[in-house]
Amino acid sequence: MAGKSIEELKIGDSAEFTKTLTESDICLYAGITGDFNPAHIDETYAGKTRFKGRVAHGMLVAGLVSAVLGTRLPGPGTIYLKQDLKFHLPVRIGDTITARVEITSIVPRRNLAYLRTTCSNQDGKLVLDGEAVVMPPTATAE
Amino acid sequence: MAGKSIEELKIGDSAEFTKTLTESDICLYAGITGDFNPAHIDETYAGKTRFKGRVAHGMLVAGLVSAVLGTRLPGPGTIYLKQDLKFHLPVRIGDTITARVEITSIVPRRNLAYLRTTCSNQDGKLVLDGEAVVMPPTATAE
Amino acid sequence: MAGKSIEELKIGDSAEFTKTLTESDICLYAGITGDFNPAHIDETYAGKTRFKGRVAHGMLVAGLVSAVLGTRLPGPGTIYLKQDLKFHLPVRIGDTITARVEITSIVPRRNLAYLRTTCSNQDGKLVLDGEAVVMPPTATAE
Amino acid sequence: MAGKSIEELKIGDSAEFTKTLTESDICLYAGITGDFNPAHIDETYAGKTRFKGRVAHGMLVAGLVSAVLGTRLPGPGTIYLKQDLKFHLPVRIGDTITARVEITSIVPRRNLAYLRTTCSNQDGKLVLDGEAVVMPPTATAE
Repeated sequence: MAGKSIEELKIGDSAEFTKTLTESDICLYAGITGDFNPAHIDETYAGKTRFKGRVAHGMLVAGLVSAVLGTRLPGPGTIYLKQDLKFHLPVRIGDTITARVEITSIVPRRNLAYLRTTCSNQDGKLVLDGEAVVMPPTATAE
Repeated sequence: MAGKSIEELKIGDSAEFTKTLTESDICLYAGITGDFNPAHIDETYAGKTRFKGRVAHGMLVAGLVSAVLGTRLPGPGTIYLKQDLKFHLPVRIGDTITARVEITSIVPRRNLAYLRTTCSNQDGKLVLDGEAVVMPPTATAE
Repeated sequence: MAGKSIEELKIGDSAEFTKTLTESDICLYAGITGDFNPAHIDETYAGKTRFKGRVAHGMLVAGLVSAVLGTRLPGPGTIYLKQDLKFHLPVRIGDTITARVEITSIVPRRNLAYLRTTCSNQDGKLVLDGEAVVMPPTATAE
Repeated sequence: MAGKSIEELKIGDSAEFTKTLTESDICLYAGITGDFNPAHIDETYAGKTRFKGRVAHGMLVAGLVSAVLGTRLPGPGTIYLKQDLKFHLPVRIGDTITARVEITSIVPRRNLAYLRTTCSNQDGKLVLDGEAVVMPPTATAE
């Protein structure tokens, strides 16, 4: 179950995870975080915005990036240090999002890996991107 | 219900939201995002890590920042453009987290506000910080 | 599956339903209703109140009364017309609540039944009471 | 974060909260309360009733009233004493409900406030109304 150590990683390695974001996901996420912004939970309000309906919370979409980092690359044992995020397009109820991470830089001496992180929708449009900095798992980290 | 426009904001304005992060929150968040990293959902595994037990997903904690931005300051109608995040300390099941946002810079010409964003635990320790960039609501944005 | 019609009911008939109200129930209920009153979701705040910790939403407890009416007495097909509620004691996380309904009056001509409705905790203390008015199911109501 | 004390309230003060009630909300609410009345969770059964489909639990809708009282007016620290409810119209999956509370009477000597409480749907139709009696927060109540 252990993820990959810094020695097992190389620049260009990538991993993905894809999930449809449902109305249920958005309702539950609102409840977990307290984010009852009407853009997410009030269809009457949301229908009058530029997005013409309820949209997913941006930070919920970003959670798919974290899922890839923590389960696939580097995987279990990874320590998440930094993430920057740019939100490009709204994600609507029912959109299918693919989160992708790709290693762009490795600093073995400090046990750091840098990854380009993106989320795209079912039409291949970029909805979110950014950079993650993580410490891959080590034998002593566990 | 509308949030504050750029004209209504001033540097130093701040808002907060506090919530206890429960086991239920973490389980549901795992299900919503697919982030089944064992550090969050496997107590046996998590008990052997440096954190000595399951911890909340960092991006779930970051969701509390988004909640403040979208519901309190600037509030409904805000467009979330950027967020950078540094994860400083783990959040354990049952920790009570206060997310705080404070306006640090305003660019009226481009309708942009910059905010320092932090999450602290019940002991006042900083668990996460970063910067958000948002477009406050405008009459024409709706 | 049909509930009891007005002809099948008599004064003094009663039914109960018992459930432990968990932290998960309270978190989910907050999310469903948007009721993020800190008394329910912020342990630090709630610990300083007269109740010394988070309590269940009163209306969540009242939902157990509705459960008995709609599933047991009169049961499926019942139309809920009125409910009045008095909240007597807080319900804490982990309390086991028994909701009980008892028919106090029947008006066959108007197809109305009146019921005394109570919720008690595991110590037999009354936490909530009130009166319900319902229309029991009829052959033509379906 | 404290709500308004009796001195800060005046007759005619009002507050609202709006939320779309989703299928997910109704499913979760059924699970939390045990209210598995087929009118709410069995589409085949519900399609044959006068309502022609599953409807939200009346007490779930009433929870939106509680949300306004506990988070907005009077807000945190309020003690909920009484609520009476009349259910006028069914709420269907996807209806957007606005809960509204308005102060109708204040008894400072006993620290009591009375409020008219209503829920209306996206068409402005009244689905539920009633009266709430609350004790607004006081310095000594915490």
